[in-house]
Amino acid sequence: MLSLEEKIVHDGLALGTQIVKVDSFLNHQIDVAFLHEIGQEFGRLFADKHPTKILTMESSGIGCAIAAAQALGDLPVLFAKKTVPSTMVEDIWYADVKSFTKGTVSRAVVARKFLTAGERVLIIDDFLAHGEAGMGMIEICRQAGAVVVGMGAVIEKEFQGGGARIREALGDGAELHSLAVISQIRDGVISFRH
Amino acid sequence: MLSLEEKIVHDGLALGTQIVKVDSFLNHQIDVAFLHEIGQEFGRLFADKHPTKILTMESSGIGCAIAAAQALGDLPVLFAKKTVPSTMVEDIWYADVKSFTKGTVSRAVVARKFLTAGERVLIIDDFLAHGEAGMGMIEICRQAGAVVVGMGAVIEKEFQGGGARIREALGDGAELHSLAVISQIRDGVISFRH
Repeated sequence: MLSLEEKIVHDGLALGTQIVKVDSFLNHQIDVAFLHEIGQEFGRLFADKHPTKILTMESSGIGCAIAAAQALGDLPVLFAKKTVPSTMVEDIWYADVKSFTKGTVSRAVVARKFLTAGERVLIIDDFLAHGEAGMGMIEICRQAGAVVVGMGAVIEKEFQGGGARIREALGDGAELHSLAVISQIRDGVISFRH
Repeated sequence: MLSLEEKIVHDGLALGTQIVKVDSFLNHQIDVAFLHEIGQEFGRLFADKHPTKILTMESSGIGCAIAAAQALGDLPVLFAKKTVPSTMVEDIWYADVKSFTKGTVSRAVVARKFLTAGERVLIIDDFLAHGEAGMGMIEICRQAGAVVVGMGAVIEKEFQGGGARIREALGDGAELHSLAVISQIRDGVISFRH
């Protein structure tokens, strides 16, 4: 998605060799007009998979998931929580997710009643790095007996290996689409794979 | 907002005298079509205040804030983070926010560069209970020199006193609008103030 690559280069910030900050338009401040474009692109890529629900991870995934849901006919969005709220008393599906950036492990949690067998789930997230969040969401769908029909990431950092992990976990039936694939970050320059 | 009250009664769950759960459509699973209605209502209420930015708190506020932003001409949405990300290296505005439900205090953080003097900020959140999150966001705007032109909450629990605190803090220049005001929760029955 060329407009996204241009946005990353123009408004993003490369830090060292591992981090690209996009908090000016995606995961702290949100450019709502541009979010619409992101949603339209996910809609174009996944409409033929006929998803019935979108699953994402709080917090940064929520905006992208809502935009995709709007483009796909106002699908319900379910966001996994990273802490178990005191008001969440029902049975849960969960997966432990490691953050390489923070060096922590958090438990991603979904109430069982909102993810049930046979649902056709599209997983959406803002970043795909080592693939921990995506693998956790695939695991949660497996527990629920839901069908993962695809996964969409706004930005994939290819060199951190998550894309390969996710593609292997998805198998033949579902596709991963990343709207921008970063192959390298070096000396403040972000390179993309096309 | 009658359709919201009906939704709360039909899809919500009253727990004890303090808690109403709306995780089936607002803060775990999101009903994206209904979210659009919420956004339209905020748009109708606040269009004449000419906000230039929407401020909310992660995670549950993000959806409501995006919907309001779309209704107000695709305003940028800024969501305060409850933990300081390791990649957030710049100067921050912050306020400490107590959670009465969890019994914890968390620091709400915004990068200074995304909230500057003179901006006209509309604060949006899913719940207004004791008013801690709202007061924190007002304080963050005060630090930045930004003008709070109003605050919108989807659901206010009037009996927890946050509305009175927020109205006093906002003063004469800005209004608080809650789309549904709950006056009492008792024996599983939710009562509304009209």
